[in-house]
Amino acid sequence: MNDHDFDRAIQLQADDSLDLSAPSGGLATMRYLAHTSEPYWNAISPFGGTTVALVLNAILQHPQRLGDPLAMTVNFAGPIQKGPMLVEVSPIRTGRSTQHWAMSIRQQGDDSPLLTGTAVFAVRRDTWSDSESRMPAAPPPETLERQTPPANVPFLERYAMRYVDSHPLQGGDSSLTQCWISDLPPRPVDFPSLAAYCDSFAPRLFVRKGAPRPISTVSLSINFHIDGEALANEQCLAAFGRSRANGFYRGYYDQEAVLWSPRGSLLATTHQMVWFRD
Amino acid sequence: MNDHDFDRAIQLQADDSLDLSAPSGGLATMRYLAHTSEPYWNAISPFGGTTVALVLNAILQHPQRLGDPLAMTVNFAGPIQKGPMLVEVSPIRTGRSTQHWAMSIRQQGDDSPLLTGTAVFAVRRDTWSDSESRMPAAPPPETLERQTPPANVPFLERYAMRYVDSHPLQGGDSSLTQCWISDLPPRPVDFPSLAAYCDSFAPRLFVRKGAPRPISTVSLSINFHIDGEALANEQCLAAFGRSRANGFYRGYYDQEAVLWSPRGSLLATTHQMVWFRD
Repeated sequence: MNDHDFDRAIQLQADDSLDLSAPSGGLATMRYLAHTSEPYWNAISPFGGTTVALVLNAILQHPQRLGDPLAMTVNFAGPIQKGPMLVEVSPIRTGRSTQHWAMSIRQQGDDSPLLTGTAVFAVRRDTWSDSESRMPAAPPPETLERQTPPANVPFLERYAMRYVDSHPLQGGDSSLTQCWISDLPPRPVDFPSLAAYCDSFAPRLFVRKGAPRPISTVSLSINFHIDGEALANEQCLAAFGRSRANGFYRGYYDQEAVLWSPRGSLLATTHQMVWFRD
Repeated sequence: MNDHDFDRAIQLQADDSLDLSAPSGGLATMRYLAHTSEPYWNAISPFGGTTVALVLNAILQHPQRLGDPLAMTVNFAGPIQKGPMLVEVSPIRTGRSTQHWAMSIRQQGDDSPLLTGTAVFAVRRDTWSDSESRMPAAPPPETLERQTPPANVPFLERYAMRYVDSHPLQGGDSSLTQCWISDLPPRPVDFPSLAAYCDSFAPRLFVRKGAPRPISTVSLSINFHIDGEALANEQCLAAFGRSRANGFYRGYYDQEAVLWSPRGSLLATTHQMVWFRD
């Protein structure tokens, strides 16, 4: 295991107390024990990005996993408390080239799941390929200053956000921001950290209002546009992200983003729905 | 019940053979019987839009449903055959203002679900609201000709698509299209039909290649930006949709869209991942 705090945050231990044998020829649900991370703690709950990365990691480690992540949706159903978590991932259906998953997170003392989600994995194959969403021209990350994060939000200390032509608290009519994202200390971008990057954008409400407000992500989806081999070959230590909202309406708003590698390869598109108070 | 074919396509009959009583104070899983629709049949399977509308309708009809749809993701895991379907919806967790759901579709003779999904419903409340995604200027639908659909795809006969400045088989470097969408015969837009509209866009691969190709939607997500009362007040008989792809990569591409009411209210944003052969 890597010594990075992020790897510790998404660490999983197979739950040996369970019978993991699948029915003959069937697919096995796997249960893992995990633990919330102090370094990736948010204001009142874990950073959602590490939570998404954790359930993705559970599928990546499943012995019957087929292919690479293609699409995932995670719903934050209830407040995760500091402490141990039970992560369960179930292969629902496996085809020739795609595999469908359900996942959940539970904690002791709570009858209902605190997270539900689905994911599709797929074996990629050579076809005609083209990116329509091209990375905007941007100066390299090392030439830009790191945005100073607000105090008292531990997980923000684990990321360097370097903004181009925008500010996370700019205020005004547009929520569009563009920035380089990287781990602190640096860590090569893999699927779990890419998933976490998808939740690392400053909340669009803060961008519009020019200041923090109470918010809470309700549902987050990610589409992956690169396979594992190509992602490893990119050797990214950062991603470039463009994020915006489409609408704020009666207590909820959306946030969408596109992420590219430093070479300009399309990595992922993501969108979420967020509860807010103004 | 409305006499429209669409209403028949999403019709549900509670499965009386099951004990629907929930554990004391608990939340009840509901099972419904449904049937694939001949009028909304696609080339080799049901039109995905009616399938999405069907599971959404099952939640809307659930006696313990709280609020309006906020976000949903549906994964098409296996081929639905013509005939009866078992639709199951389960309230996973209910908070003060949000409710989390899981849903599935099964058919007899198949052990695994053919569809899995999650949804979040929410009670809206008055807050600051603003749409950043504004509807482009477009001539009214009645001034534009209906795009003649290709023969032999029944569900396309149930929609009028009226394109603005684009063609669904335009070919070339851009997959961007803009069009009015309406039911044939006309039907007021409600949540189920809006969900179906989200899957009605010409596949972006066809737009890029200028001709049909084998494709199959794998996962589709919808974010709703309007509540039930406001949607009813819009009295929409059509929606304006703008759709595009971000990337085509090794066997899969994405398709995203924004939908507005004729008055310009933001209705929904949606995106899907699609398997393709070129």
